[in-house]
Amino acid sequence: MTHVDSVVQQALAAKQAARKWALLSTEQKNAALRKIAQQLLENESTILAANEQDLAAAANNQYPQAYLDRLRLNHQRVLDLANSLEELAALPDPIGEEVAQWQRADGLSFRQIRVPLGVIGMIYEARPNVTIDAAAIALKTGNAIVLRGSRTARQTNQSLTASIQQALRSLDLPEEAVQYLTADQREAVDTLCTLNGLIDVIIPRGGADLINRVVKTSTVPVLVTGVGNCHLFVDQSADPDKAIPIVINAKTSRPAVCNAAEKLLLHKNWPYSERLLTELAAAGVQLRACPLTREQHPELAHLLQSATDADWDTEYLDLIIAVRTVADLDEALQHIEQHSTGHSEAIITEDTGKAARFLGAVDAAAVYHNASTRFTDGGEFGFGAEFGISTQKIHARGPMGLTALTSTKYLIVGNGHIR
Amino acid sequence: MTHVDSVVQQALAAKQAARKWALLSTEQKNAALRKIAQQLLENESTILAANEQDLAAAANNQYPQAYLDRLRLNHQRVLDLANSLEELAALPDPIGEEVAQWQRADGLSFRQIRVPLGVIGMIYEARPNVTIDAAAIALKTGNAIVLRGSRTARQTNQSLTASIQQALRSLDLPEEAVQYLTADQREAVDTLCTLNGLIDVIIPRGGADLINRVVKTSTVPVLVTGVGNCHLFVDQSADPDKAIPIVINAKTSRPAVCNAAEKLLLHKNWPYSERLLTELAAAGVQLRACPLTREQHPELAHLLQSATDADWDTEYLDLIIAVRTVADLDEALQHIEQHSTGHSEAIITEDTGKAARFLGAVDAAAVYHNASTRFTDGGEFGFGAEFGISTQKIHARGPMGLTALTSTKYLIVGNGHIR
Repeated sequence: MTHVDSVVQQALAAKQAARKWALLSTEQKNAALRKIAQQLLENESTILAANEQDLAAAANNQYPQAYLDRLRLNHQRVLDLANSLEELAALPDPIGEEVAQWQRADGLSFRQIRVPLGVIGMIYEARPNVTIDAAAIALKTGNAIVLRGSRTARQTNQSLTASIQQALRSLDLPEEAVQYLTADQREAVDTLCTLNGLIDVIIPRGGADLINRVVKTSTVPVLVTGVGNCHLFVDQSADPDKAIPIVINAKTSRPAVCNAAEKLLLHKNWPYSERLLTELAAAGVQLRACPLTREQHPELAHLLQSATDADWDTEYLDLIIAVRTVADLDEALQHIEQHSTGHSEAIITEDTGKAARFLGAVDAAAVYHNASTRFTDGGEFGFGAEFGISTQKIHARGPMGLTALTSTKYLIVGNGHIR
Repeated sequence: MTHVDSVVQQALAAKQAARKWALLSTEQKNAALRKIAQQLLENESTILAANEQDLAAAANNQYPQAYLDRLRLNHQRVLDLANSLEELAALPDPIGEEVAQWQRADGLSFRQIRVPLGVIGMIYEARPNVTIDAAAIALKTGNAIVLRGSRTARQTNQSLTASIQQALRSLDLPEEAVQYLTADQREAVDTLCTLNGLIDVIIPRGGADLINRVVKTSTVPVLVTGVGNCHLFVDQSADPDKAIPIVINAKTSRPAVCNAAEKLLLHKNWPYSERLLTELAAAGVQLRACPLTREQHPELAHLLQSATDADWDTEYLDLIIAVRTVADLDEALQHIEQHSTGHSEAIITEDTGKAARFLGAVDAAAVYHNASTRFTDGGEFGFGAEFGISTQKIHARGPMGLTALTSTKYLIVGNGHIR
């Protein structure tokens, strides 16, 4: 069997399972999630043994320590996965929810209800926990899913998928609803992304290269999650007791995530710039500054590297921030318009008029006033579960909760109505 | 300038205009729509002269009469366009609408509000009225739009676009918000569909070839509108006084549109099949029947052609219907699952249990009980304006009203909140 045949066969099986899965009750779906949690705990030794194989291969291939850490499962991580499944089971089920309903004067009645998307194709890198998280959210929302993680995590991911399937089988539910691509060629991903009619949406999660490849190849609709070149604009009237903690938090609390701040725009007349920059440096942040910033702060010359053009568009995901001094709100807005990735942007100011202008004009999934960009997260938003943060404008924007994996349909009931 | 440069330049100009257009008030946008209506009436003779050029060229190139009819504008059609602009101006503005709002226990407050998508790329065929309809709906929802119609309607479309731009200019609004692609190579469309970052969504409207080409080429998200291979299932218990008018209406009232019925599934024990088939034939409908149907109705042999495999997947858009006799609801559901394009499907039955099963199991944008599929239409749904009927599951499904051209963003206000 060619890899194309094998991918098509798996997608077809997923589609058939999706039809059945879409009609399950909330109780059946939650029971499945709880059973999967139990199965993961029971299969822990098998799963960790598979993970050891992946780790050994990756170590042999000289992957860096940070990579191995992301790849590693252990007792605690398996426990965490099981707990997250229990939490997901406890969340409300969006499927069947009535989104709208109305009746025409002639008696024709309309209901718009929430339904599953169908079959999700999920392409991701490194962390094996995504295998469980993605499958669980898909099942909770009545969808089937075809998974494809990175090759380095293959044994682990297949072992996790096998546990899911074992759990579904034991409940007499269609195990084909969760599948891991068996073809391991890179081209198998391209095939998956062009199976319109079988796959309803493709979700790539990983670095910019992966996402760009999928966007270029896919003829199936793609939900783009992602890159966050997030800006903080500290206005002339910013309260330093708010601004300094916000900037430090947004940059340093977890620099490797997409909602971390990457750029700092300082109003040229804000009196506390020196203090802020000194505190950032003290927190271990490398500062890359524009010429005006360096000119205004000769006393900080030893802390301020020169920013290059490339800095303004770079998502460092590290303890680095680029700093630009701007003349006013307009210059800040212009800079953000030019360099924003549409993820999260913030203004820190005591001027409510300027705050309102910023909130209105900035085109991003989340726009903040006097708060850290780090709040752009499904958990912080209160969504209970999160499936990534969408930086595109169609379907879902910002943190994607359970409803992002749903569609709707109209049910129209008449009594012989004709047009 | 190459066609690529020219397309990029127009898209860039549209994006800049979109930023300004997004911030206009409802009153400014409605004034623009009314001004465009007035301008169309003032420029009628220029527009009709341009249309005459297109008609003459198309006639020279031996286009069929039906094609010329679709291409033709006249005084009445210009009046209709102006009226539709006035009606659109009177509709509520979805932009700025609060979709959700909540506050956390720590005081951090969240608002999700409706915003424009940005820049729409619209690729369409034949009817020049789409130029006005699409531009007007885009402007009403705060978006910019780059238009590309068929080459046969080029003079007409450019003349209509010039009238729009003239109207915007006279109100001192950014006329670049509506553009017609000047590069007329086919490749210009491919370029438009790959301008991620400049174009936010591509909407193709036309035949299956156009739509497939765009889906294959585009790296920008596509809203697929479309093909309707709509089924009517007449159950054993169907009331003939409802079933016969519904089938006749769904097939014959306007056969060339996507919500017209294309397939008829008859329960083998429904007692009124002969009467229905005879009435369909009397209404001028060509009947293509499965072997069982022909076997059950030897007396109708002269009316029943043999259906081929291809019939079950063909959207005729004509006075033709394929008829299959099925054993029960399950067989009907299976047939629909296999052949549905996800547009509109209907059951006609007095059995509420079967109706509920059908409404739950069928995966389509609109699912009907005892009503004609012809109601799948923005106007019939009460949306006021319609931008096509989506047959995909993400972003918008079914008739797309004004909100289908919007996205949302989260505005988050704190008081120094950090995570």
